Amino acid sequence: MLKIDRELFMKMALVEAKKAFEIGEIPVGALCVYNNKIIATGHNRIIIDNDPTAHAEIVTIRTACKIMGNYRLKDVEFYVTVEPCPMCISALINARVACLIFGAYSDKWGYMTKFKMDDSLWNHKMKIYGGILSSDSKLLLRDFFKKLR
Amino acid sequence: MLKIDRELFMKMALVEAKKAFEIGEIPVGALCVYNNKIIATGHNRIIIDNDPTAHAEIVTIRTACKIMGNYRLKDVEFYVTVEPCPMCISALINARVACLIFGAYSDKWGYMTKFKMDDSLWNHKMKIYGGILSSDSKLLLRDFFKKLR
Repeated sequence: MLKIDRELFMKMALVEAKKAFEIGEIPVGALCVYNNKIIATGHNRIIIDNDPTAHAEIVTIRTACKIMGNYRLKDVEFYVTVEPCPMCISALINARVACLIFGAYSDKWGYMTKFKMDDSLWNHKMKIYGGILSSDSKLLLRDFFKKLR
Repeated sequence: MLKIDRELFMKMALVEAKKAFEIGEIPVGALCVYNNKIIATGHNRIIIDNDPTAHAEIVTIRTACKIMGNYRLKDVEFYVTVEPCPMCISALINARVACLIFGAYSDKWGYMTKFKMDDSLWNHKMKIYGGILSSDSKLLLRDFFKKLR
């Protein structure tokens, strides 16, 4: 996977994040790539769907699994604009995603930065790349929380 | 909450777990109690729904939130027949469930027993009672995995 491809897919995930922003949800976007093609996209829908599990990652995993006709997302690369929370990183492990690429690190809800989860205990190993187009993601979050106040 | 009430509700959750068993899913069942009434029930539906997030807890949280018309489950007591995995405990925290009552401890996937998650970092405090009707839950799991082999 080339750096340029990664940034291109992350830009598409940021487009998803903006959709969340526009409906008043915390701007986080995600997408799944399989064979170098986007097979599913999603964004936060917690308030609009009355669903505390409807984080961008869960929405996207569920859509991708429907499309793949499988409850495992083997060989899938997963993009999300912010470091996943403990719920979402665990969902990605449960889904057996091959590779996770995320944007901004989060000291508010990041599974690693905030919650310091012990990845040596996971029963599935994912490749993980953090900090991709981090400043674009952070800018979007900052604008959102500024607007909220 | 009296011990007798807790065991009664856990028995109802075990009925849900048996429904999972009957459709070939790992037998875990859950339910939500609000004002001493069951408002939602659920069981594992991972394979049947092609959804790696469809653990008993997530299924039940989503149903309860639809019924309550809210993405928070304030004042809800949540029953599940087995110790939640990291995904599900985090979903319960995201949902702001007041109290969690679970059955068997799990060294295979328990957020505490296996994954030793640091609950001091959570941004919501739940009362947690584990080990309720544990042997009934374990028996069901043992039967399931015996059948599978």
